[in-house]
Amino acid sequence: MAGNLLVAQGGGPTAVINCSLVGVIEEAKSFQGEGIDKIIGALQSVDGLIKENLVDLGLENSTNLKKICGRPGAALGSCRRKVTEEDCERILEVFKKYDVHYFLYNGGNDSMYTAHNVEKLAQSIGYELSVVGIPKTIDNDLAFTDHCPGFGSAARFIATATREIGIDIESLPTPVSIIETMGRNAGWIAAASAIAADNEGDAPNLIYFPENSFNIDLFLSDVATVFSKWGRVVVVVSEGIKDAAGQYLGSIKSEAAKDGFGWAMPGGTATFLSGLVAEKLKLRSRSEKPGLAGRTSIANVSLVDQGEAYLVGQAAVRAVLAGKSGIMMTLQRDAGSSYKCSIGEAPLEKVANAEKLLPPEFMNSKRNYISDAFLEYCKPLIGDPIRSFASLNLHRLVV
Amino acid sequence: MAGNLLVAQGGGPTAVINCSLVGVIEEAKSFQGEGIDKIIGALQSVDGLIKENLVDLGLENSTNLKKICGRPGAALGSCRRKVTEEDCERILEVFKKYDVHYFLYNGGNDSMYTAHNVEKLAQSIGYELSVVGIPKTIDNDLAFTDHCPGFGSAARFIATATREIGIDIESLPTPVSIIETMGRNAGWIAAASAIAADNEGDAPNLIYFPENSFNIDLFLSDVATVFSKWGRVVVVVSEGIKDAAGQYLGSIKSEAAKDGFGWAMPGGTATFLSGLVAEKLKLRSRSEKPGLAGRTSIANVSLVDQGEAYLVGQAAVRAVLAGKSGIMMTLQRDAGSSYKCSIGEAPLEKVANAEKLLPPEFMNSKRNYISDAFLEYCKPLIGDPIRSFASLNLHRLVV
Repeated sequence: MAGNLLVAQGGGPTAVINCSLVGVIEEAKSFQGEGIDKIIGALQSVDGLIKENLVDLGLENSTNLKKICGRPGAALGSCRRKVTEEDCERILEVFKKYDVHYFLYNGGNDSMYTAHNVEKLAQSIGYELSVVGIPKTIDNDLAFTDHCPGFGSAARFIATATREIGIDIESLPTPVSIIETMGRNAGWIAAASAIAADNEGDAPNLIYFPENSFNIDLFLSDVATVFSKWGRVVVVVSEGIKDAAGQYLGSIKSEAAKDGFGWAMPGGTATFLSGLVAEKLKLRSRSEKPGLAGRTSIANVSLVDQGEAYLVGQAAVRAVLAGKSGIMMTLQRDAGSSYKCSIGEAPLEKVANAEKLLPPEFMNSKRNYISDAFLEYCKPLIGDPIRSFASLNLHRLVV
Repeated sequence: MAGNLLVAQGGGPTAVINCSLVGVIEEAKSFQGEGIDKIIGALQSVDGLIKENLVDLGLENSTNLKKICGRPGAALGSCRRKVTEEDCERILEVFKKYDVHYFLYNGGNDSMYTAHNVEKLAQSIGYELSVVGIPKTIDNDLAFTDHCPGFGSAARFIATATREIGIDIESLPTPVSIIETMGRNAGWIAAASAIAADNEGDAPNLIYFPENSFNIDLFLSDVATVFSKWGRVVVVVSEGIKDAAGQYLGSIKSEAAKDGFGWAMPGGTATFLSGLVAEKLKLRSRSEKPGLAGRTSIANVSLVDQGEAYLVGQAAVRAVLAGKSGIMMTLQRDAGSSYKCSIGEAPLEKVANAEKLLPPEFMNSKRNYISDAFLEYCKPLIGDPIRSFASLNLHRLVV
């Protein structure tokens, strides 16, 4: 089979999403005329695919491609479209019109679900199409892969920010600071903040994960305990934490404020908890929510993450050329004491229907911090150790 | 006069506050035995001074001092104490006990006020004491200085974050993102986000300053206008914006939510406005609040800021040795087309009682963005230009 290859970027960007794209383009270029004809990009993902907003990526200049690797956002653009059966039919029409026989989709669960459906439809109508998924998500919630490209850099960001904020808080004691992370229903990013702590008492002191139902009384008691020991508390919470009734913490205040201004979006979890600490514990408290900065900060890119993002893109091209289809490329951690990953694969259908949450063995028994096993898992993914900071020796003066 | 020199760090830390400290220590070391005996540091600022929690900074090792320059937080510790007359009397007692005749205080308005009061008291009792202030604040609200050490790095952080978030938003259109900055009653940091924009339509699209009373209807109309033109809106708001009644925007929701959980702390301005946009304009909206990350991010330190922070510390030592007192060191921008600052001085008393807000000539006429004059003022302060990002050439494919 020979034909054109089409690549698209789905869902939320990561700090290294474009490395996967460049991996695809550079690898595909090296096979142009030997299996691959045109290298086509869909602008704004499935939206552009459906509207035939397509570009010829084979014409991109090599020097510029190197720079694209270090760019935040999705260089081709992405979209939030819920892909319907009709959309899939239209996609196949476009594929036929543009002679596309290789489809690479870089994204998370939803994108893998779309890729799977497009492949099924192609098979049912007898259209020759190889479909391979390229994993991507800061949330790290894709199954069948050790971790997801994008997560290592989000982890590096939150670990760095937590360490720096912790040092600030230690020098000018604000009793409580609550940092909200992204991650949706998965606690991976929140957990990664623990890399900031080198010594007992270092930030973060408490971490709350969306995998467990959040108990306000336990939380307040945890904060009070840490405060009485250290005189300051840095808490990291995932945006997705919910109470026992399954309600997002950040939306409780919408309820409380329903006669005033309602909130149409989730979020505001840290602001809510900070207000609660101030009111119930009478402690000065503040909140931070780096938000999108947590997935766009190029200064915090993990070089390991960047390299792996490129590799899975490259591997996807090799896979379709080897006649594979219906799979997502994965990262498989090799055995041994030093970190190394190999490229593997998993069926798109299985990936599409699974969500890998932070497992209990990566949390402590109280579910308010991580376990050592998590640190062992996560540390290699952020690349070089994060910046550490010197302290004065503070020779006490006595007269 | 010869004697011991005491240095303290007051108020909120900046990313370069320790450069001023190192400037003091290194310069004072070079005069030990020639005017200066011991170099004393007060731990936790005035708190430690009063409790005699003092350290001998002359014993700090030179290699470590270089590293301290690149550390967030206040290396000696700081405090939030409102200094009373009794406190000043106690400070003088400690100065006498430890033979302190040079007092250098690194801080903002409040710290300068304290320094001024300590000097007055020393004069009134005939105690020989030279007092010199070293400017420091991310808020950039000290008068009589072109700008304040700490601001350039906070400006660099917000410009970088705004550019990166803008690129993310552009690639996966979330119609509205509202970024909250620090800065208290001064709009300098919010204004600095404009350095992110190279082209029309680039983030930030709108900036709101606490110097103007905030009008919700105008804000919503501004957001709707930008959205209709660009399909996306990145808004930067200062945490300190207030409505016509002088109420902090972030506290309006506390009122609305007073039957539920009240907020004891200001803040939450961006969350509030984001909810408002969602409700009134029916646009998907989100908010980011980097918070303390904005003053602690070492990756975003401005080298110009770092250098100037060192210089004002060094200059303060030279000033007391030259017999000066009752002044704060300042930065005076030299005339000419290329940026250069000289060290100047201003009376502590005048600095203590003034607050330099963002002037009208640094805003546009609608007061929802900056003027070109502001960019000219601010750009040199962030050091090298912030990272710029490549884009794909996007050669459109047509069959």
